[in-house]
Amino acid sequence: MHDLRRRLAEIDDLERISMLLGWDQEVSMPPAAAEQRAEQRATVGRLAHELFTDDRTGELLASASPADEIEVDLLRVARRDFDRAVRVPAELVADRARAASDGRRLWGEARAGAGFARLAPALERHIELARRFADCFPESAHPYDALLDIYEPDMATTEVRHVLGRLRDGLVPLVGAAGGVDDSVLRDGPFAIAGQRRLVDDVLHAVGVEPGSWRLDLVEHPFQATIGAADIRVTTRYHERELESLFSSLHEFGHGLYERQIDPALARTPLQTGASSSWHESQSRLWENMIGRSGAFWRWCRPLAAAALPERFAEVTWQQIAAAANVVRPTLIRVSADEVTYGLHIVLRFELELELIEGTLAVGDLAEAWNERMRAMLGVEVPDDLRGVLQDVHWSEGLFGYFPTYALGNVIAGQLWARIQRELPELEEHVERGDFAPLREWLALNVHRFGRRQTPAELLATTFGTGLDPEPYLAYLAAKMRASASLMS
Amino acid sequence: MHDLRRRLAEIDDLERISMLLGWDQEVSMPPAAAEQRAEQRATVGRLAHELFTDDRTGELLASASPADEIEVDLLRVARRDFDRAVRVPAELVADRARAASDGRRLWGEARAGAGFARLAPALERHIELARRFADCFPESAHPYDALLDIYEPDMATTEVRHVLGRLRDGLVPLVGAAGGVDDSVLRDGPFAIAGQRRLVDDVLHAVGVEPGSWRLDLVEHPFQATIGAADIRVTTRYHERELESLFSSLHEFGHGLYERQIDPALARTPLQTGASSSWHESQSRLWENMIGRSGAFWRWCRPLAAAALPERFAEVTWQQIAAAANVVRPTLIRVSADEVTYGLHIVLRFELELELIEGTLAVGDLAEAWNERMRAMLGVEVPDDLRGVLQDVHWSEGLFGYFPTYALGNVIAGQLWARIQRELPELEEHVERGDFAPLREWLALNVHRFGRRQTPAELLATTFGTGLDPEPYLAYLAAKMRASASLMS
Repeated sequence: MHDLRRRLAEIDDLERISMLLGWDQEVSMPPAAAEQRAEQRATVGRLAHELFTDDRTGELLASASPADEIEVDLLRVARRDFDRAVRVPAELVADRARAASDGRRLWGEARAGAGFARLAPALERHIELARRFADCFPESAHPYDALLDIYEPDMATTEVRHVLGRLRDGLVPLVGAAGGVDDSVLRDGPFAIAGQRRLVDDVLHAVGVEPGSWRLDLVEHPFQATIGAADIRVTTRYHERELESLFSSLHEFGHGLYERQIDPALARTPLQTGASSSWHESQSRLWENMIGRSGAFWRWCRPLAAAALPERFAEVTWQQIAAAANVVRPTLIRVSADEVTYGLHIVLRFELELELIEGTLAVGDLAEAWNERMRAMLGVEVPDDLRGVLQDVHWSEGLFGYFPTYALGNVIAGQLWARIQRELPELEEHVERGDFAPLREWLALNVHRFGRRQTPAELLATTFGTGLDPEPYLAYLAAKMRASASLMS
Repeated sequence: MHDLRRRLAEIDDLERISMLLGWDQEVSMPPAAAEQRAEQRATVGRLAHELFTDDRTGELLASASPADEIEVDLLRVARRDFDRAVRVPAELVADRARAASDGRRLWGEARAGAGFARLAPALERHIELARRFADCFPESAHPYDALLDIYEPDMATTEVRHVLGRLRDGLVPLVGAAGGVDDSVLRDGPFAIAGQRRLVDDVLHAVGVEPGSWRLDLVEHPFQATIGAADIRVTTRYHERELESLFSSLHEFGHGLYERQIDPALARTPLQTGASSSWHESQSRLWENMIGRSGAFWRWCRPLAAAALPERFAEVTWQQIAAAANVVRPTLIRVSADEVTYGLHIVLRFELELELIEGTLAVGDLAEAWNERMRAMLGVEVPDDLRGVLQDVHWSEGLFGYFPTYALGNVIAGQLWARIQRELPELEEHVERGDFAPLREWLALNVHRFGRRQTPAELLATTFGTGLDPEPYLAYLAAKMRASASLMS
């Protein structure tokens, strides 16, 4: 077990280093170094992959005997990861990496004026490679299962189809019922950048960002990177025209807190990360939406906002802010969508990518299919592909199977929120006082500390005694819309 | 050759990544992550070492046939590095790394109050390990040769002894001849930090720092890191009480420019760095001292200084600044020593570490020996070990053989300066106009572009037609002292 743990620790080091190379590229790196950085990242990725998939790792995994319960879980997870990794030929791994890099570049060109036709061949190549990847797992009931499994171990396409179908059926009427709310208090800038910075700093400090083990930096596209258990990096961006920075920072904080509160005994093992992408997203969404858009939060935060941005918030009530933070309005762009319409943006992407993989939709028909479904589900006309099929980077990099985890994350956040409200009846009062420790501790105890020791399904079962259930999330949204309407009346 | 080049490129990637891990640790990393970062750095170092020293590298080196002159040099350098690397047992490499880390920690404790006795056992261990390292190279004429060779390939202890002896004999009378110059214009703060930043930015921009491929950051102990040919990172620090930031920034710029101007055809090979530590130091010293402390530089820079720090420089002449920048005054601390006394600080360290390795000086007598030689060479009394033997980190990390390269760098800078003045007779006018391109180009053509293609001795021979010669440096210092005296009269 000692040699195995040492090897897994080295692989974990390389993966953290790869994250640092990515973080540095977005935050610090001089732009001329992009090509060299791509080589550096490729080298680290290749070495980590080779170290993990070589015969010696297989021998160590076969012969290891665990000394405690953590090692039992470690061995199970590492064996599963190994079994899946060795079934994908190194050549296919390299082809997919190259296609991702090519596709990313073509997406940029398509967006810069060349149009969707520039990207289409790359998408066709991705679909071919994705099918070859799925072929490595012939026991799967559906080729999409193998893609999902990268982000959601053991998740079945049929289950995603079922859960997202129920979500769609629940969300469409909520969109229809949305009333007109004046949200100019959060949307029509200018919001002074210096004031936004101060507000974000104050809020992050209060929710749990400690300078000894966290960083906050500026980037073009916010993300969170865990370089180590005591090195949690969140990023944000500031635009004068809106206050997105606050919600985006809370979102990335949610990801970071998950990683920060994993049991330190799991350090430098493959157990030291979240259970799955959707579990991770449940944490970011919980802090961004359940907390950051709540009345209790704004009863606490309004004076901070007024101190940081007096010209905007001195004369505004918490009710006005909370109502504006929860406005429901069908729009074209996923990343800036409200909580209700967001799910429909994901359903659309899931349905389309599933049909692409199944072969029932051709890449040549993708843009038109996109526009039709936007009309059908959200009632909006897509004026151009920039605001349509070209808006997200994911497909250009061959990321199929990833989008649904965003919606599943909301579903899990809904289930968590229902249980948290039962078990922390005084949470609202804590939040009103700016005391987030009880919530952090609840999350550490019930979710975070396990890391990957439980599978996503086991974590659902132990946390909720059930599987994925979209009803609590839909009920939460409906209640929130009623509350928002009453705030404004 | 293809497989060899690929392997050497991967090793180079790992070494650059290791530099980034170090840079990030000083510039960005949250402090709580220090322990994890040590593991990450150890993993990258071990993988790079294993990749380089394994049998397959040896086979590739033995069978490769070079296709051009660069590959001839590449093969020669890589074979030399390999032959030396495989002679040191992996266990000894690991022991030295661990001892370095332990020693660094004990040095901190010694400085924080525990005193030299806390560090002494670590120094004894380092000396033992250094001798075992030297034993791996029994063909050396002197055990110190093997240590020197890490930083100065092929340099002999006898030659260092000869050159530094001549340097000492030339410097001691210069110290004695130094007159009293009022240097308060550069030394007695406050110098507003914002103004210092502006001045450093302006000067670095003028000498050749381009934002597309360089960075400037703040650290506690300035250094330069090359993450890639288009990713050159310099660091500095600002203290209100003095204007050290400007000279320190020029110093690190000199290191960075060397790396920046290496022939791009050498990218991702072991040839893509400076010829040796002393050649590297010659570049930093040339920009810091020959340029940054010259009259021509201050005729150009004084208006910039006056604009950035009007409260300090509006009423000051370039003559006053240039005289202050060249004041000679024996002091206790190496890093803030002037150009003349600096060499004596190095001679002292070289003599002491040589005696430690030879066994003619015991660690227990080191502090007293230090203080005696400070009295003899510089005429100053050392009041405590913090300002004596505990001032530098190097020995605590087992770095023996490194200190002399600082002085050899000055010697080479003197030789370069003499040739540059012959070949660029209009340099002074260029500098007065803030045009540093001719000097950059001369250095690129005559030194930088070669990287490690020439050995340090070959580069001396092709550049000067001779070996190391301290006379030009001594003549430069003597001339400068005469000029400073006349500026003030």
